Amino acid sequence: MVASSEAFDIRLKTNAQEIEALLDALLSNDVREDEIARPESLRAAMHYAVLNGGKRLRPFLVVESALLLGGDKEAALRVGAALECIHCYSLVHDDLPAMDDDKLRRGKPTLHIAFDEATAILAGDSLLTYAFDIIAADETGLPEQSKVALVLALARSAGLGGMAGGQALDLAAEKNTPDERGIVTLQAMKTGALIRFACEAGAMIAGASSDDRKRLRAFGEKIGLAFQLADDLLDVTSDAATMGKATGKDVGRGKGTLVSLRGIGWAEAELRRHVEDATQLLEPYGDAAATLAATARFVAARKS
Amino acid sequence: MVASSEAFDIRLKTNAQEIEALLDALLSNDVREDEIARPESLRAAMHYAVLNGGKRLRPFLVVESALLLGGDKEAALRVGAALECIHCYSLVHDDLPAMDDDKLRRGKPTLHIAFDEATAILAGDSLLTYAFDIIAADETGLPEQSKVALVLALARSAGLGGMAGGQALDLAAEKNTPDERGIVTLQAMKTGALIRFACEAGAMIAGASSDDRKRLRAFGEKIGLAFQLADDLLDVTSDAATMGKATGKDVGRGKGTLVSLRGIGWAEAELRRHVEDATQLLEPYGDAAATLAATARFVAARKS
Repeated sequence: MVASSEAFDIRLKTNAQEIEALLDALLSNDVREDEIARPESLRAAMHYAVLNGGKRLRPFLVVESALLLGGDKEAALRVGAALECIHCYSLVHDDLPAMDDDKLRRGKPTLHIAFDEATAILAGDSLLTYAFDIIAADETGLPEQSKVALVLALARSAGLGGMAGGQALDLAAEKNTPDERGIVTLQAMKTGALIRFACEAGAMIAGASSDDRKRLRAFGEKIGLAFQLADDLLDVTSDAATMGKATGKDVGRGKGTLVSLRGIGWAEAELRRHVEDATQLLEPYGDAAATLAATARFVAARKS
Repeated sequence: MVASSEAFDIRLKTNAQEIEALLDALLSNDVREDEIARPESLRAAMHYAVLNGGKRLRPFLVVESALLLGGDKEAALRVGAALECIHCYSLVHDDLPAMDDDKLRRGKPTLHIAFDEATAILAGDSLLTYAFDIIAADETGLPEQSKVALVLALARSAGLGGMAGGQALDLAAEKNTPDERGIVTLQAMKTGALIRFACEAGAMIAGASSDDRKRLRAFGEKIGLAFQLADDLLDVTSDAATMGKATGKDVGRGKGTLVSLRGIGWAEAELRRHVEDATQLLEPYGDAAATLAATARFVAARKS
């Protein structure tokens, strides 16, 4: 239950602390069964990439979606941590010189600057791999059937047909500006797929009905759209100090966004509409969904 | 049953054809459930990276280990294809300029040369992701429990505590030559872990007893050691024409190998010992293990 914006902020922050404690433990130097050793340089790089002060929005969505439908919180935290490993690996690889060539991320040196490029590639690979380890591990404590469904859904959201494919489209967009439909597909893949997965995963963890799973998935799609529009709006209205990274880059590179195509006014109205749609999808759950509804508003209103 | 070296060659080649047909189908442009689109440039790059004329040794080990213990061949082929995706992703990333900076692989341009560096990074990421998709997918047709065990074992073999960790140690070895124990750990991680997984996975697919699983795992460890020694010997005795890639590189970079540390004679004797150990582990299975025994000899005798 979230009665106020302050209560929401506390809930989001508490979740971030729980996720970070879990990620810190998962990336300790304790060698686990079937591991031969944990080379310190690589472990430290993975730790740096993951313990980077993010808002942990995706894990928050996993946990809140799971709790809404009666799922186990510990299991949800672990799946959330796995998803955060995927998100953080994608940031590390996207920042590489051959990709977006970014030197700052949340005001800190990107991984290939703080360590080196080879280590950044390997740390990304290892975080991606670790995500599936975390879901499949005994400690996650879900039925085998749920684990298999989560592995499959996460792989499809993150791979060729999801996030990685979206990044490929994004790189191509620097050369050939896509039309509106192309931009929508690109964004649904690059940022939407993981957010959709986050909400659907909560339902899967809870062993929810097919109806609830579809509803949470649709909710995830809506806030994925809101997230991206908010991001595109920030890119043209914010400055580097607020974002902790370079801004105005999309336009500078000639990359089309819905904001550049349709204008700020249209985008702001569209953003409101997505939040309304998302909120409506939660109506059957009443007050129990107050936190998820607040998350939709938070995503649209974020300043960084 | 393998009565002759010729029969073995045919069996290995037939398996490679089956694996390649499966990989070709898995990397077609058919968009699967939960995928949003398959961007053509990325799909083509993944296809190029995987359909590259390898011997498919790891999938062969999965299939032959599974068949030995009564496992389903179709399931074994799919797990073998997943493992090959991991192996091929690792080659793509290892070849990158920031890593080994190789321009040729099996006589063909490496992926970042044939496409570009960003695409090579993303294709590697997507192949790694796809491996877990393939194992978890319905078509693999194994009990959920086996799928979860396979996902976990593959992730541990490929990640921080396995192959990727081994590559990190390998990069570090260019600066600080490891001692013999360090080299053994590095090689067990970098090449041994996936070969060990291949053999153990066969037992897991067959739902074999814990004893059989341990035996196949130990067999995999032995031929992993043989594989690496044969590779190190080839590096000093072969030439680029036979290998289809640059040779003598390990020594040129000052990287220690057991061959450079102990000499060719010692390494050849050690190689024979590993093959004998591997063969002895198969004794309880009698003639049924003839193909696996032939694989151990093949690994030790390979010329490329």
